[in-house]
Amino acid sequence: MTLEEVQQIIDNGPYLSWLGLKVLDLGEDSIEVKATWRPEWVANPKLTQTHGGILAALIDFGADFALVKNIGRPVPTIDMRVDYHRLAKPGNLIVKGKVIKFGKQFSVSEARIYDEAGALIASGRGTYITAPAPEAAK
Amino acid sequence: MTLEEVQQIIDNGPYLSWLGLKVLDLGEDSIEVKATWRPEWVANPKLTQTHGGILAALIDFGADFALVKNIGRPVPTIDMRVDYHRLAKPGNLIVKGKVIKFGKQFSVSEARIYDEAGALIASGRGTYITAPAPEAAK
Amino acid sequence: MTLEEVQQIIDNGPYLSWLGLKVLDLGEDSIEVKATWRPEWVANPKLTQTHGGILAALIDFGADFALVKNIGRPVPTIDMRVDYHRLAKPGNLIVKGKVIKFGKQFSVSEARIYDEAGALIASGRGTYITAPAPEAAK
Amino acid sequence: MTLEEVQQIIDNGPYLSWLGLKVLDLGEDSIEVKATWRPEWVANPKLTQTHGGILAALIDFGADFALVKNIGRPVPTIDMRVDYHRLAKPGNLIVKGKVIKFGKQFSVSEARIYDEAGALIASGRGTYITAPAPEAAK
Repeated sequence: MTLEEVQQIIDNGPYLSWLGLKVLDLGEDSIEVKATWRPEWVANPKLTQTHGGILAALIDFGADFALVKNIGRPVPTIDMRVDYHRLAKPGNLIVKGKVIKFGKQFSVSEARIYDEAGALIASGRGTYITAPAPEAAK
Repeated sequence: MTLEEVQQIIDNGPYLSWLGLKVLDLGEDSIEVKATWRPEWVANPKLTQTHGGILAALIDFGADFALVKNIGRPVPTIDMRVDYHRLAKPGNLIVKGKVIKFGKQFSVSEARIYDEAGALIASGRGTYITAPAPEAAK
Repeated sequence: MTLEEVQQIIDNGPYLSWLGLKVLDLGEDSIEVKATWRPEWVANPKLTQTHGGILAALIDFGADFALVKNIGRPVPTIDMRVDYHRLAKPGNLIVKGKVIKFGKQFSVSEARIYDEAGALIASGRGTYITAPAPEAAK
Repeated sequence: MTLEEVQQIIDNGPYLSWLGLKVLDLGEDSIEVKATWRPEWVANPKLTQTHGGILAALIDFGADFALVKNIGRPVPTIDMRVDYHRLAKPGNLIVKGKVIKFGKQFSVSEARIYDEAGALIASGRGTYITAPAPEAAK
């Protein structure tokens, strides 16, 4: 799967499109993506920080799509964990996903989110169904 | 904090408003909320399932706001876990949050998401800063 | 699977035996077990609290064995989360496991640990492989 | 804190001693430790694999003690996640802990467990209280 094909999957997905994701780099077991800030991301209008649910979506995306070049498709998430390290001020975010363990039945990946100044905003990991069966049921 | 005050916090928050959250019930250690489906929630346009990042945001919201009546304000999330049980078809979702342990420094809450037919879609839990200090930095 | 059969699995397992586990109750989607304190459980000799790794083992056990009556055997753990609520003083512990979602491929269960006075010490949840295939490898 | 001081904390702790932990390397934000196998670690006597609760204890230890050189003491665990990648056959294990984010109130660390052949057995991460207050209450 090429970077262009991954970008097309994103552009076809309503929520991934809404997150304004642009693939910057695609490796055998990694991905780097930019997410484009939008005003709807704000949690508390006084603090103007990006909502944790947006960060969780980016962790899930980054961990999942770190597998995509090798597996050939986005895969269903079984579960995930997100750790919040800093409040994210308004601005684009960089997501870096990396595979921890490829497995026949399921795989584990991690992702980290940075702001444009390079500060670590959040990190996490998830477990993904990578069995060949195309069934998406969980 | 009353149900109306909680609804106002939601209505003032850009992302919580975007999730179309309506508080149905507010207890001492629990909350029940309806989230209003919108087309941007769709992950894969063929499967039309709601994206896991939306579900993660709802788990975080439900677990956090289960604490709100007792603590008197929404609190910063330290970390959370989400388990995905079923694909969510287009439609509104019901989120039920419940406190597991109130603590002086931080507290643990859980949440479950159901579709309108009552099927369990996702569940999870998070840890929240409930220390009196109003500092939101993590 | 009967309570006696579950107790026999425990008694045949070196680590489960070492934890001194006695099944108190076995339900369709639940289990209650007593763990017998031993001096090796202590983390810090000044605080005398039970080590978090013992509590993690009990969470994993309780969540796994809540599935055992229905599935007919203990199942491999994919991943788990543990939340620590209070220091556990020397003494036996009660573990209560409960299934959150039975699934064909994998299932999610939770467990809570109480001291003998009924205080909540720790809680958590895990994902387990419940596919019929007897392969334990992951 | 020196490697020898860390080893002494381990040797003074009943459960850490029971795990047979030997510090191999101590860095500013990392630690490497060997755990010495013992027969009580076995989960299922037919498969002879090390129980997941032992692996969970090692993840917690490795993540916690990656902070120890910088913080100056072991710190209370708030919560943790463990992912199981392979069954561990009888034999010693190598644990590598590394800090993800130092924080004033709490910090996040990860750890990976390898067998003596270098295969990744389990990995995980935890959140730790690193506030200066020596209160151990959670």
